[in-house]
Amino acid sequence: MNIDKKNIAIVGVGLIGGSLALQCKKKGISNHVVGIDNNPLHAEQAIALHLVDEMLSMEDAISKSDVILVAIPVDSMITLVPKILDLIDQQIVIDLGSTKSLLIDKVKGHPKRSQFVAAHPMWGTEYSGPTAAVEGAFEDKSVIICDAQDSSDEAIAYAKLLFGNLNMRIFEMDAHDHDLHAAYVSHISHITSFALANTVLEKEKEDSAIFEMASAGFESTVRLAKSSPDMWTPILKQNKDNILDVLNEHIMQLRKFKSCLEKENWEYLHELMEKANQIRRIIH
Amino acid sequence: MNIDKKNIAIVGVGLIGGSLALQCKKKGISNHVVGIDNNPLHAEQAIALHLVDEMLSMEDAISKSDVILVAIPVDSMITLVPKILDLIDQQIVIDLGSTKSLLIDKVKGHPKRSQFVAAHPMWGTEYSGPTAAVEGAFEDKSVIICDAQDSSDEAIAYAKLLFGNLNMRIFEMDAHDHDLHAAYVSHISHITSFALANTVLEKEKEDSAIFEMASAGFESTVRLAKSSPDMWTPILKQNKDNILDVLNEHIMQLRKFKSCLEKENWEYLHELMEKANQIRRIIH
Repeated sequence: MNIDKKNIAIVGVGLIGGSLALQCKKKGISNHVVGIDNNPLHAEQAIALHLVDEMLSMEDAISKSDVILVAIPVDSMITLVPKILDLIDQQIVIDLGSTKSLLIDKVKGHPKRSQFVAAHPMWGTEYSGPTAAVEGAFEDKSVIICDAQDSSDEAIAYAKLLFGNLNMRIFEMDAHDHDLHAAYVSHISHITSFALANTVLEKEKEDSAIFEMASAGFESTVRLAKSSPDMWTPILKQNKDNILDVLNEHIMQLRKFKSCLEKENWEYLHELMEKANQIRRIIH
Repeated sequence: MNIDKKNIAIVGVGLIGGSLALQCKKKGISNHVVGIDNNPLHAEQAIALHLVDEMLSMEDAISKSDVILVAIPVDSMITLVPKILDLIDQQIVIDLGSTKSLLIDKVKGHPKRSQFVAAHPMWGTEYSGPTAAVEGAFEDKSVIICDAQDSSDEAIAYAKLLFGNLNMRIFEMDAHDHDLHAAYVSHISHITSFALANTVLEKEKEDSAIFEMASAGFESTVRLAKSSPDMWTPILKQNKDNILDVLNEHIMQLRKFKSCLEKENWEYLHELMEKANQIRRIIH
């Protein structure tokens, strides 16, 4: 797949934006990557780590670029993306946030709506900021493009070319469905992990016991608890209804385990775990 | 560290026993490893996969061995370990189960008690059976030896030599403390993961959405849900009280997240996640 070497501006040079910047240079997707970040420390780090070629103001970056990729917390996203659309001429704007419905509402009817593509790459780590950027990110991961019918053919074609060059698997979905499924398979995992960390920190007063006994299994279930509250508060806020729905179900499922233990119903406990084993069908 | 090349018998040639057999041969800990397993398929697989040199009956294996390592589900453990102690002469017996208090109660006062060492290697995967055995297991993981004062110096010295040769970090703890800490940092993770799998399987009727959208984060929190119910039912049963205690706390922690979402208390939600971030202090 060939890709025009367009000038790319990346708004937010943190985990997602910084990793994207690295891949855009490495894959020859762009010869010149400009960064925009209102955090002066992040701006400095992005230069020092060679994530981007230069850091510019929003206006200068937009006028110098063909494509603007936006990778900022989703609360800033809903205010900043409409402003970016106000500033652009022919440029394509792609957001990479974890929630989609509210943002798509906010740009509805904007004169430049068709130059905007709403996308969610299903990749991330529990770390944040430019120092969290890693080479080789996004490879073989999924990316969901939402409400593609409201974007121009040109904008969608470019977005697909971009994600295709990153070796991502591209799916289309409407924003409402995206937010529902994201609550089920991504957002709930973060809540369970945050809550598990708080559980263990509350119960286990001996740090040394955790050090000594924490196995790979514990680390695996709790690692998302290291994720950034600044990034996750707005995600949980914007997707509140879907998340509450799945969180209620999850508490109910945990209560089943609790009830089995209390009633010493080992047959049903075994059955609950056998049922859970069916996740093998989906996750290998 | 040098180790006598003793003849070793391994009871239960599954994930733990099979992986141990591989390491015992690879590390030169034993020249001859005998397997014992009452599952004929597992016995066949252990030979076919070259995990052990031969499969024997319990009586033959014991008479041919200097050390007997027991790696079976903890419900079988409490009945089989006393029987093995009935059969031995000078041999050392080491169990590798995930719960300790009940087993240690069961062997209390046995004439061969001092030849027995209760150990829990903090390593495992979500798979089971001989085909789940992997090379290089246990390396750099912790192993907890419980109630060492009730084992002979010779038995403890051999256990430490064995685990040291596997490059494990050795800790001592009393059985009661072990079971408490294990509930906090290992057993609860399995319950949350099983319950999360059931949550998603219940809510998400579109398998394809899980396929497309499941990220590394989701896989990480849910992978333990693939664990064996035959192995985990007796663990949860034997450690019921400690697990109920931490499970109640966990449900309470999840309710805090729920309440924040319901009341739109984003400041407290942020605070809960900041608090969870402190797990970074312990898990790197």
